Amino acid sequence: MSYDDALDAALERLHQEGRYRTFIDIERTRGQFPHAVWRRADGSERPVTVWCGNDYLGMGQHPEVLAAMHEALDATGAGSGGTRNISGTTVYHKALEAELADLHGKEEALLFTSAYIANDATLSTLPKLFPGLIIYSDALNHASMIEGIRRNGGAKRIFRHNDLDHLRELLAADDPAAPKLIAFESIYSMDGDFGPIEAICDLADEFGALTYLDEVHAVGMYGSRGAGVAERDGLMHRIDIINGTLGKAIGVHGGYIAASAKMCDAIRSYAPGFIFTTSIPPAVAAGAAASVRILKTDSARREEHQTQARILKTRLKGLGLPIIDHGSHIVPVIVGDPVHTKKLSDMLLEDYGIYVQPINFPTVPRGTERLRFTPSPVHGPREIDALVQAMDALWSHCALNRAALSA
Amino acid sequence: MSYDDALDAALERLHQEGRYRTFIDIERTRGQFPHAVWRRADGSERPVTVWCGNDYLGMGQHPEVLAAMHEALDATGAGSGGTRNISGTTVYHKALEAELADLHGKEEALLFTSAYIANDATLSTLPKLFPGLIIYSDALNHASMIEGIRRNGGAKRIFRHNDLDHLRELLAADDPAAPKLIAFESIYSMDGDFGPIEAICDLADEFGALTYLDEVHAVGMYGSRGAGVAERDGLMHRIDIINGTLGKAIGVHGGYIAASAKMCDAIRSYAPGFIFTTSIPPAVAAGAAASVRILKTDSARREEHQTQARILKTRLKGLGLPIIDHGSHIVPVIVGDPVHTKKLSDMLLEDYGIYVQPINFPTVPRGTERLRFTPSPVHGPREIDALVQAMDALWSHCALNRAALSA
Ligand SMILES: Cc1ncc(COP(=O)(O)O)c(C=O)c1O
Ligand SMILES: Cc1ncc(COP(=O)(O)O)c(C=O)c1O
Repeated sequence: MSYDDALDAALERLHQEGRYRTFIDIERTRGQFPHAVWRRADGSERPVTVWCGNDYLGMGQHPEVLAAMHEALDATGAGSGGTRNISGTTVYHKALEAELADLHGKEEALLFTSAYIANDATLSTLPKLFPGLIIYSDALNHASMIEGIRRNGGAKRIFRHNDLDHLRELLAADDPAAPKLIAFESIYSMDGDFGPIEAICDLADEFGALTYLDEVHAVGMYGSRGAGVAERDGLMHRIDIINGTLGKAIGVHGGYIAASAKMCDAIRSYAPGFIFTTSIPPAVAAGAAASVRILKTDSARREEHQTQARILKTRLKGLGLPIIDHGSHIVPVIVGDPVHTKKLSDMLLEDYGIYVQPINFPTVPRGTERLRFTPSPVHGPREIDALVQAMDALWSHCALNRAALSA
Repeated sequence: MSYDDALDAALERLHQEGRYRTFIDIERTRGQFPHAVWRRADGSERPVTVWCGNDYLGMGQHPEVLAAMHEALDATGAGSGGTRNISGTTVYHKALEAELADLHGKEEALLFTSAYIANDATLSTLPKLFPGLIIYSDALNHASMIEGIRRNGGAKRIFRHNDLDHLRELLAADDPAAPKLIAFESIYSMDGDFGPIEAICDLADEFGALTYLDEVHAVGMYGSRGAGVAERDGLMHRIDIINGTLGKAIGVHGGYIAASAKMCDAIRSYAPGFIFTTSIPPAVAAGAAASVRILKTDSARREEHQTQARILKTRLKGLGLPIIDHGSHIVPVIVGDPVHTKKLSDMLLEDYGIYVQPINFPTVPRGTERLRFTPSPVHGPREIDALVQAMDALWSHCALNRAALSA
């Protein structure tokens, strides 16, 4: 057994499938986002416009967010210096948790180092709290949910994406007395479609199941205070556990769940992924708290975000490009082949200074490889014009189908 | 099935065993660490000295570290805005990875959001790269390693803590052709004892196994440039994968592995815990890079740290307290009962303003509950005097055995 050969083989597989990932090394310039500088491997630089970031609202450069971070750095230093239990709980962490609990209308919130670990740790801990728990999981749930659900080998059922009949069938087939949980997302980030929150809550009520909702791509952006789609639809109180991130629309870093005090207390007490790790830096918590607070009243920013997304989708549709439009802020253009997608992305970057990463398997199913654009309130008419013109030119140049896959 | 009853039962178990954790809410004051302010639940405050932090060297308040963070915040904003693959790789992440690769004398390093997820993601991904991999894991390995090893149900063998004969026995019993990996730590953080790195590397050579070393409690503190115990012992080149944190002696947040370019490339490409999560904020990366850079030449700080630990151990031993002393920087005092430990910790905090968290199961085995002190270069003679006097008084007050369990 040669370890080196095995590594070569693993990497070769990716190259052959055209899905070896090359990271693009960028530096965003505060105050000029979405403009940034791309640093090539040879050290040379090129100005680019970032079209694939998840700082959806530009909060990562909001002066008050940065001020809160500077202030906390000066007041308390760089790191927290410990796990939450062992000297790593600070006033900043507590204040952020209070802010988040209030946002979601829940008794409490619990911080994790990311929404990835919040999903993974929470979903893998629930079967310890509810012995015999069966988790019903949407087929397109994020990797972090899948990892959490799989981790402890608990019972799981996968229902076809957004398919309520299938979900009902699975629920009905199981022991009515067994504890149950339905895990799903409010916005599926790669297609930008919405989960049927109300109908799933109805099924949960009918079958006595708990509900677990990942609002990672909705927090900050939907609802009158930015709590997500469940808030927009008046359904927050019907969700038992809400998962969110501080690293996308909030613009900073970290993740959390919001739930009842008892649920948070139990997860806090039993989840290794919460217990055995250094808590997020106080300055990060301070920045996130400021951002959440600002967004609670800044509906104008949310509306502008939606407007930009609508404009971009209308213009790309006007060119007949195969975009997916479910009415959310995410703008995916389907290419359907990993090599073509990478090629398009390379040309956009090199020739047009437009940075959009190719999205391949395993992030999306094979055959649905895509470019995924994320317009934001800071992408102005000039940036949109440049993008639309570049896409038009490249699509013709590459003789790609127009509208073939358009939804 | 009542979900609420199940939660009550889960929480009640902890209360009954005396190991329900109460977080202590503190605010460190930059420049005055280890002094901090404890905020009680009722909002009242009390000055305390932190004796259980893992900012072992006080780097979390180093002016150059803070300056680097302020600068990056001003230059580039709050968060990275994306996963490493999708717009979240910045010049700060690349610079930190280069700094860490250099530190450990490896071709490359790979950043994760924490050392917890670095362990979990790497160890759970290796079986995908080396089909049939058997992982040999020290019985006292950290929860994050255990979670990673268990995650995918790959083959594992647990060897008794630091027991080379047992490890050899297990290695010898398996198919010589099977790919193998030995996973262990350089310093076990709860006892402060060292792993037998050289002997394990010899066994690895003999049986054709890879080596995986968690240096989380050694990075920054051991070796001429602070790369850890493997550096101190001249063994870095014999370790295939080194795991470290940026959240303890480095003073900031995040984690990493350092290994060959091929190994890092494969983990980067296959580990969901690396791929599907927002990268650490550029400012966090900048602060960590500054700290690592400073520590490469600051041997005086490392020596001072060891001196402080020796002084504290000598003085606690002088009182006949049951401390464990393996010659590392960690100072555990065994109490042996969760209720007593919590009581001592509460009295130290309330009556003496000394903050040291009780360490209970599952962090340590039942019956070895303890107070774990972490002296640092910023704990001066005044702080040590106060601690020693408080411990002396409390030990008498509680009529606890002296030296009974002393190692
Ligand atoms: C041995 C060991 N490995 C890994 C970790 C995780 O490190 P981090 O805090 O960066 O997640 C810890 C403690 O937190 C640890 O003690
Ligand atoms: C649906 C979903 N959940 C969770 C996560 C993880 O969030 P974080 O970046 O905070 O780890 C992501 C993306 O990163 C996501 O897309």
